[in-house]
Amino acid sequence: MIKERLSKLREHMKAAGIDCYLIPTSDYHDSEYVSSFFMVRKYFSGFTGSAGTLVVTMEGAALFTDGRYFIQAAKELEGTGIKLMKVGEAKVPTIKEYLEQVLKEGQSLGFDGRVVKANDAKDYEEILGRKKGRLVWDKDLGGEAWPGRPALLHQPVFLLDERYSGEGASSKIARVREKMKEEGAQIHILTTLDDIAWLLNLRGNDVQNSPVFLAYGVITMDKALLFAQEEKGGEEAWPGNVRAYLEENGVTLLPYEDFYPYLPGIHGKKILLSAGRVSCMLKKSLAQDVEIIDRPNPTALMKAVKNPVERENIRKAHVKDGVAVARFMYWLKKNVGKISMDEVSAAQYLEGLRREGENYIEPSFDTICAYGPNGAIIHYSAEPGSCAQIRPEGLLMVDSGGHYLEGSTDITRTFALGELTPQMKAHFTLVVRAMLNLKCTKFLYEARGMNLDIRAREIFWEQGLDYKHGTGHGVGYLLNVHEDPNGFWWKKTPGREDSAILEEGMVTTDEPGIYIEGSHGIRLENELLCRKGEENQYGQFMYFEDLTLAPIDLDGVEVSLMQEIDRKRLNDYHQQVYEKLAPYFEGEELAWLGEATRPI
Amino acid sequence: MIKERLSKLREHMKAAGIDCYLIPTSDYHDSEYVSSFFMVRKYFSGFTGSAGTLVVTMEGAALFTDGRYFIQAAKELEGTGIKLMKVGEAKVPTIKEYLEQVLKEGQSLGFDGRVVKANDAKDYEEILGRKKGRLVWDKDLGGEAWPGRPALLHQPVFLLDERYSGEGASSKIARVREKMKEEGAQIHILTTLDDIAWLLNLRGNDVQNSPVFLAYGVITMDKALLFAQEEKGGEEAWPGNVRAYLEENGVTLLPYEDFYPYLPGIHGKKILLSAGRVSCMLKKSLAQDVEIIDRPNPTALMKAVKNPVERENIRKAHVKDGVAVARFMYWLKKNVGKISMDEVSAAQYLEGLRREGENYIEPSFDTICAYGPNGAIIHYSAEPGSCAQIRPEGLLMVDSGGHYLEGSTDITRTFALGELTPQMKAHFTLVVRAMLNLKCTKFLYEARGMNLDIRAREIFWEQGLDYKHGTGHGVGYLLNVHEDPNGFWWKKTPGREDSAILEEGMVTTDEPGIYIEGSHGIRLENELLCRKGEENQYGQFMYFEDLTLAPIDLDGVEVSLMQEIDRKRLNDYHQQVYEKLAPYFEGEELAWLGEATRPI
Repeated sequence: MIKERLSKLREHMKAAGIDCYLIPTSDYHDSEYVSSFFMVRKYFSGFTGSAGTLVVTMEGAALFTDGRYFIQAAKELEGTGIKLMKVGEAKVPTIKEYLEQVLKEGQSLGFDGRVVKANDAKDYEEILGRKKGRLVWDKDLGGEAWPGRPALLHQPVFLLDERYSGEGASSKIARVREKMKEEGAQIHILTTLDDIAWLLNLRGNDVQNSPVFLAYGVITMDKALLFAQEEKGGEEAWPGNVRAYLEENGVTLLPYEDFYPYLPGIHGKKILLSAGRVSCMLKKSLAQDVEIIDRPNPTALMKAVKNPVERENIRKAHVKDGVAVARFMYWLKKNVGKISMDEVSAAQYLEGLRREGENYIEPSFDTICAYGPNGAIIHYSAEPGSCAQIRPEGLLMVDSGGHYLEGSTDITRTFALGELTPQMKAHFTLVVRAMLNLKCTKFLYEARGMNLDIRAREIFWEQGLDYKHGTGHGVGYLLNVHEDPNGFWWKKTPGREDSAILEEGMVTTDEPGIYIEGSHGIRLENELLCRKGEENQYGQFMYFEDLTLAPIDLDGVEVSLMQEIDRKRLNDYHQQVYEKLAPYFEGEELAWLGEATRPI
Repeated sequence: MIKERLSKLREHMKAAGIDCYLIPTSDYHDSEYVSSFFMVRKYFSGFTGSAGTLVVTMEGAALFTDGRYFIQAAKELEGTGIKLMKVGEAKVPTIKEYLEQVLKEGQSLGFDGRVVKANDAKDYEEILGRKKGRLVWDKDLGGEAWPGRPALLHQPVFLLDERYSGEGASSKIARVREKMKEEGAQIHILTTLDDIAWLLNLRGNDVQNSPVFLAYGVITMDKALLFAQEEKGGEEAWPGNVRAYLEENGVTLLPYEDFYPYLPGIHGKKILLSAGRVSCMLKKSLAQDVEIIDRPNPTALMKAVKNPVERENIRKAHVKDGVAVARFMYWLKKNVGKISMDEVSAAQYLEGLRREGENYIEPSFDTICAYGPNGAIIHYSAEPGSCAQIRPEGLLMVDSGGHYLEGSTDITRTFALGELTPQMKAHFTLVVRAMLNLKCTKFLYEARGMNLDIRAREIFWEQGLDYKHGTGHGVGYLLNVHEDPNGFWWKKTPGREDSAILEEGMVTTDEPGIYIEGSHGIRLENELLCRKGEENQYGQFMYFEDLTLAPIDLDGVEVSLMQEIDRKRLNDYHQQVYEKLAPYFEGEELAWLGEATRPI
């Protein structure tokens, strides 16, 4: 099937005179998750992971993806003839190096310029320059060669009340204008959906797991344009209170389709935009006489720093979320081996518990419910039918989260379902110690995730172990579950904004893990709120407040492998969990919660 | 006296039509330490610190220096009429902001373009551009107005045999040419003295504490020019074996003075140079048709990675250095309170012990020997006459090092000379734990000092303490004691190259400290050699080998404040110290060494 799809694509390439066609995993807004309309790479490769780029030539095809997906991609690409390129492994070329190799003198490279970032396109253009080739950036061949492509949906938009958002849109826009002034810009173009939703206190449902809506924003010193309305039949998507709110806050609503045609009309202005986030098409659409000031979107840092209203709400969301996860744990421990359950049904059960929480909207990402060896697949996705039965032995890892009006959550717990091997217990204890070590770090203001990541990782490194992912990422407020610019990750990644100075109010996950192929995977994840601590002659000290509240399975912990400080930290955490969750439990369940959070 | 010197300078300014004259602390080569010829700022201000910039206008003068020197500068500037500008304090302008303030429309700014960095000059020029003023970069008014200025000395140069350097000059030059090719450059201009000395396996004595010689280098694909010979009477500085070595390695020796006149003759070439290190005059001397490729000097990384021969030599140097420091400790502990000693005489005694070591050349920097409260002054300099007597109580901090043919050393030990207060012992133990924690870090390749710094600092931060300096710096091989690009420092400093990936063979110091004004200062410093450890599925693990070998004063350690792991680390280190130093001790001294390195 994939082979047929690819040969259809090659026909379109031939017709358009394109020798090599590139399909990234993206939408028009550089979103991490994309709606079905944008799943072009999946359609032409069969690979279902959330990250990857397909490069198709007349002779072959290659899929580039990262360590999270090596096992999954290898499986899914079987029989397609597509070569798997394991990015980051020794001797595996990057996409750019690969293009250097496959593109012959004078050949052309094509892509849909709306889904390729401006900065990437620039690099590709340089390669073509050297090869005297041609760049075709205005051909959506993937779309043309995809019969029955899903429609681009514009779902209804809703207003996030200021008792949830904590700040009005006009105040936020004023802050953006301040930053524009500082940068000497007259126009700011914003195309990232979570930034637009945050700025206007609006939410939608156009991207799976992400309550955003398709839109482009243009801010000048006296105007704010929102290109978001569907041309035909989009009236009902914009209820009266939303329209009124936009008007009150000086925002003009325009058709989504009018954005690209609008761009060439800007003349002689300095435009603030993030060249690492906007599309190639956007840059190509701008007139020669504009000047681009390339900076991270000012909204990125603003929305990462949660305001006091948001913080208070987030705490409430985590109590609800903790109740659901603790109830799930109780159910799991009580019923495993007694009733039939598999990875999919267990995830559904958890989702049902979350849905009981007030103001719950939807999962904040696809739950990873991975039993036994499946836990070693970092971004495992269980499918009905093929997924594993859960039995009363080994480990079950569940990474899940929810969107509430009070914020978004992201939590991972790994559960011991019976006797564990000594190695499993040692690994479980290692992960607990690493998570605790980072979250109990006291640090001076100005420190970044890059400085602090080793607090979790040192526990692994001293034993010659590691995990091939960041220790943590920022989390949005009823927005993307992965949010810039804060995170924990020791490596410098050019162009990646994940190591900003940790500001009071930022929310970051702390999620070390261990993955033993064919055996087990263990990850634990808490969300941390960055807080100001004491200020003295040395400066402003900072610490992390626990947001996530759910027991860490003591059945996995080997106390003899813990130091006194580890035990104290775990007991302190469990005491908090008990105190905050107990009011929502009673009877047998309450007794169980006490036992699950007992001091060790 | 200073006032007279300044009014003389102002006469020269008037004659040259210069309204504002700037004198930094630098030589023609961006050296950290400068020879007496270059101490122009000191001559015109009276301030003797190692860092500071003097700005003189017709009406006044201001000296800019940093936190290390506020107390000293305030004292030394008394009565001179020069205003002290405490850089980094609130509301104190930077030099650039100050120039913005004092320069009136159309006024001119002057300096000796050979001692001002190209990048700084560019900033000054922008200010003048806005003010429609004139930049005069070719006037050494400081030199003109300084009667009796010391001569610019060219001391004899000597060859560092390949049994010490481990690699021939032609091989090093070939590696530089490889980098030039990679960067697309036809010419590389090198003006930093340690890079030139390293590249050519030559050493000299033109800068205090730094065995380098005044020189400029120009490398093309087929030529290597060394502008270093003194025009008159420089014959004896270049012995026959040095001249022969240069010839063998294809290096042409030219007069030092011919460098600047040579530059305008370069046409149509791409020149690799480090714009953050070369002088304003250099950039101004280049023709319009050259293209500058601004990169760190390739030699910086090459010389930081010590080759196997250098590593083996460095180990030997540290045994000799450790013997001297241990003997000093023995002498100090035995004699304090019994014979008269002060900070200066104690430092001299230590220097005498170092001089007994084979192939010892000179101190690698001015010894910091600071008793009691003086230890809290991070860059304390004891002066004969005014320095403190050492008594049998409190703490003595000694930060010292030596240049040997086998490499350069840098070691700090703090000694308990009698009963300590509980706070002093707690602080001493804290510093020991922090130093041990960093040096025992096992880490994955690609980690930088920025990632690892917290391993030392976390011990401080958890108690709400900190030290306002980096945890460590690179160390040259019979070169500068402070060497780029490796170091331990958690903050990102724009333009500072101190957080390179830690490569096998790099030598970095590990020197946390605590400074309590008016009471005491404690610093401990070991040099660490970066080594490859196990390689497994997670990658290449790295660890640090101890280079420095000298007892850590157990009289300062409060064992009850240590964890088991701290004790084990300290005992392991002391066992190494004993094993490697014992062969050089006998009798009572040997027994003492055993006691000083006993397990706790």
